[in-house]
Amino acid sequence: MDRQQLAAELKKIFPAERVLTGELERKVYSYDSSFYARFHSFVPDAVVLPRATGEVSAVMRLALKHGLPVVPRGAGSGETCGCLAVRGGIVLDLSSWDTIEEIDAANMQVFARPGVVHYNLNESLAGYGLFFPPDPGSTRMCTIGGMVANNSSGLRAVKYGATEQYVLGLEVVLPDGRVIQTGGVNCRAVKNVSGLNLTKLFVGSEGVLGVITRVRLRVWPRPVARGIAMAVFADLEEAPATVLDVYRSGILPSGIEILDSSAIRAVNMYNPAINLPEAEAILLFEVDGNPAGVEWEGRKIAEIAGKRAVSVEWTTDRERMADLWRGRSVTAVAAARLRPDGSRIFAGEDISVPFSKVTEALRRIKELGREHGVAVVNYGHIGDGNIHTAPVINLESREEVEQANRLVDAIHRLAIEMGGSTTGEHGVGAVRNQYALDEHGEAANVMRKLKQALDPGNIMNPGKLLPPEGGSGND
Amino acid sequence: MDRQQLAAELKKIFPAERVLTGELERKVYSYDSSFYARFHSFVPDAVVLPRATGEVSAVMRLALKHGLPVVPRGAGSGETCGCLAVRGGIVLDLSSWDTIEEIDAANMQVFARPGVVHYNLNESLAGYGLFFPPDPGSTRMCTIGGMVANNSSGLRAVKYGATEQYVLGLEVVLPDGRVIQTGGVNCRAVKNVSGLNLTKLFVGSEGVLGVITRVRLRVWPRPVARGIAMAVFADLEEAPATVLDVYRSGILPSGIEILDSSAIRAVNMYNPAINLPEAEAILLFEVDGNPAGVEWEGRKIAEIAGKRAVSVEWTTDRERMADLWRGRSVTAVAAARLRPDGSRIFAGEDISVPFSKVTEALRRIKELGREHGVAVVNYGHIGDGNIHTAPVINLESREEVEQANRLVDAIHRLAIEMGGSTTGEHGVGAVRNQYALDEHGEAANVMRKLKQALDPGNIMNPGKLLPPEGGSGND
Repeated sequence: MDRQQLAAELKKIFPAERVLTGELERKVYSYDSSFYARFHSFVPDAVVLPRATGEVSAVMRLALKHGLPVVPRGAGSGETCGCLAVRGGIVLDLSSWDTIEEIDAANMQVFARPGVVHYNLNESLAGYGLFFPPDPGSTRMCTIGGMVANNSSGLRAVKYGATEQYVLGLEVVLPDGRVIQTGGVNCRAVKNVSGLNLTKLFVGSEGVLGVITRVRLRVWPRPVARGIAMAVFADLEEAPATVLDVYRSGILPSGIEILDSSAIRAVNMYNPAINLPEAEAILLFEVDGNPAGVEWEGRKIAEIAGKRAVSVEWTTDRERMADLWRGRSVTAVAAARLRPDGSRIFAGEDISVPFSKVTEALRRIKELGREHGVAVVNYGHIGDGNIHTAPVINLESREEVEQANRLVDAIHRLAIEMGGSTTGEHGVGAVRNQYALDEHGEAANVMRKLKQALDPGNIMNPGKLLPPEGGSGND
Repeated sequence: MDRQQLAAELKKIFPAERVLTGELERKVYSYDSSFYARFHSFVPDAVVLPRATGEVSAVMRLALKHGLPVVPRGAGSGETCGCLAVRGGIVLDLSSWDTIEEIDAANMQVFARPGVVHYNLNESLAGYGLFFPPDPGSTRMCTIGGMVANNSSGLRAVKYGATEQYVLGLEVVLPDGRVIQTGGVNCRAVKNVSGLNLTKLFVGSEGVLGVITRVRLRVWPRPVARGIAMAVFADLEEAPATVLDVYRSGILPSGIEILDSSAIRAVNMYNPAINLPEAEAILLFEVDGNPAGVEWEGRKIAEIAGKRAVSVEWTTDRERMADLWRGRSVTAVAAARLRPDGSRIFAGEDISVPFSKVTEALRRIKELGREHGVAVVNYGHIGDGNIHTAPVINLESREEVEQANRLVDAIHRLAIEMGGSTTGEHGVGAVRNQYALDEHGEAANVMRKLKQALDPGNIMNPGKLLPPEGGSGND
């Protein structure tokens, strides 16, 4: 089927304005936020904007008939080419299907279509004293569908876990167009162990098994109080040791973030008003809960951190908290300031290591940076060993791009060697599936079997998540 | 292969003392704690006691070759015939494989073989200030392998979730004898979104996909303080209304339990010293955390509950808490005291309904009990809508047994009709799979496909969890 015929077929399913087939329109969909996408051209054959389950079913039937890849897409804020048509085909842009269908406050649940933006969801829940705890840095743009497909998390995963913990049920369109409800048909119970846990299988499956068209989420009472402790360290090693001491005291903070010396420098260059103390590392502990409990934990953390830190500050003042948190939240952007011609790239940016090896990982990433001639800024979710490494390079330099690619490969391999993972929260997509056999061994073949069982035509987001076809582990 | 040949083959894999083939020995394995098992005879052809992964692999290869069912078993404390050889075959008694291989305190993880008893695990963790939060009533007997296979939970699921939330990785022997590591080979990271989430697919799969031979669990800092508030209600409806008010105040208690009037009566008959106030309902709220936070939440709960309750008591006194909690924990046993010739049966004992319908469900279960001529005691985890219904009958009366069976069917159907589930935490096994098509619709066929993909010979615990073969939903 040529592109013109495809367009005609799609216009039988969708109103013309929701079928995009012009060259420029399609090109807009050839990017996500990844480094990889800059150097490849993944232009889809067509883009459609579904706003009903039946439309998605119809596209799937059409695609299956003609063997066309189908690629679901939310906001395109991913870092792994997960939403790109790496083998052509049809992109489903689900971002305009953004209805919060119901907030069932009495059952602490919310029903949403995939395009709902994370920030908007939490704004809507706030009026009920409820919240959806996972909090990715991309809150203002990322969609719930994308969060579920990637099992996203963020700053507060250390206490609240990742998206999977809140997904009670899904409506999914299978590769043959059939529609299923996971977690029970019309179920609104929160506890349910009936049947195989399809919900959790689809969460984080990156669109390779089906299209998520509706999400039933559990939401929680919004904590009424919050506080932040900042601890400044002259020696990097003292930071993880302090985190462990805090855990051992029985406290589970809602977030524990680290900035290393280069991140601190970058933040101060980016916005001198933030004025972080120069040091080898800064830890930010956030605690939440009730006012008395928050105060107790904050003082305890200050006391514990005080034994190893150069200085400690504890605050529940709203403005001061916003300032401190801003120091952390601008890091992703600030990293580029390390050099005047620098750009921060999103690649090798999301490894996860055992908590006990965080210091070693940070030191070795710095060494790898030096070896490969690339400056790196490190920050991230130290509380759960999820390190965000920001390589900073001149994108115009072919040599630096190649150096960065080699560095990124070395960082991924380091993660596996250290008993970690190539990705703590951003996912695999088309940029980390080459490591799948090393990470999962024989289990990767089980993943392939499940994929084969649900998508024998291999039309759902091919080339992503699973080890590349023909790899040595295929059976 | 006859039974004698089977015994001979198994003795090539195991030392003779870990192969049980005598009639009496096999008969011991024909029971779990369910009502259903009392009236059926599910005697396996052989029982083996594996203590190494290689032994399990060898059994699987033997079983596959001869098309024999393989049934993993932990402590046999289940209520669903999940660990019984309903089609004969080999039972794997994993309870003696009870090694805690490592407590990795620095990474807040524990590595355990399937037979480790829940209580023992938490005793071992206590010295490190850590705990594994799910807390089934059967803590003194149930095994970690059984908990993972059934995705067990218990009193504190309302805050801490079910077992799945803590499983980071599994070693699983597949039906063809191959061994996989889910959650990453040698991985000790806690955050990992690489690949399809096989871990969560195997959790709660009730042994139909493979045999869990090793578990990597995340454990948490043990809260340093705890308190209990008891609220007594003259009107049943006020109980769930109070729970919702508490949630709305931003408090997430670690447990919220209800006893209805018949449960209160049964407890007082069982142990007059407990002396619960006579009422339509009693709620027990447990909160945990730090001392200041616990005190704040306890007083807040007392204030909120005071608006609807006849009386409220808040305590952090260790002995008083033990007394109050005992009132709840003896209910399962005490129920039988409602009549002198009564036995409490475990059937229809575990439905889950939307929180907003708890009152209605309790009333309708009572009505159903009257209609069917069976006394029922209700208690359970009201905070997440998981109701434990205890029918009390004379087991010697064939008529009462039949009445109970009809009642239980009606309770299961009520749960589905109300947007709930036939099982909140005990599982499906062979006693609730008849409802799988009603509960899951088309999704049940996806479950069948996954089963078929991983176990084409259908030797792994056949007749459990999935809808019975040949049902109308098969495709």
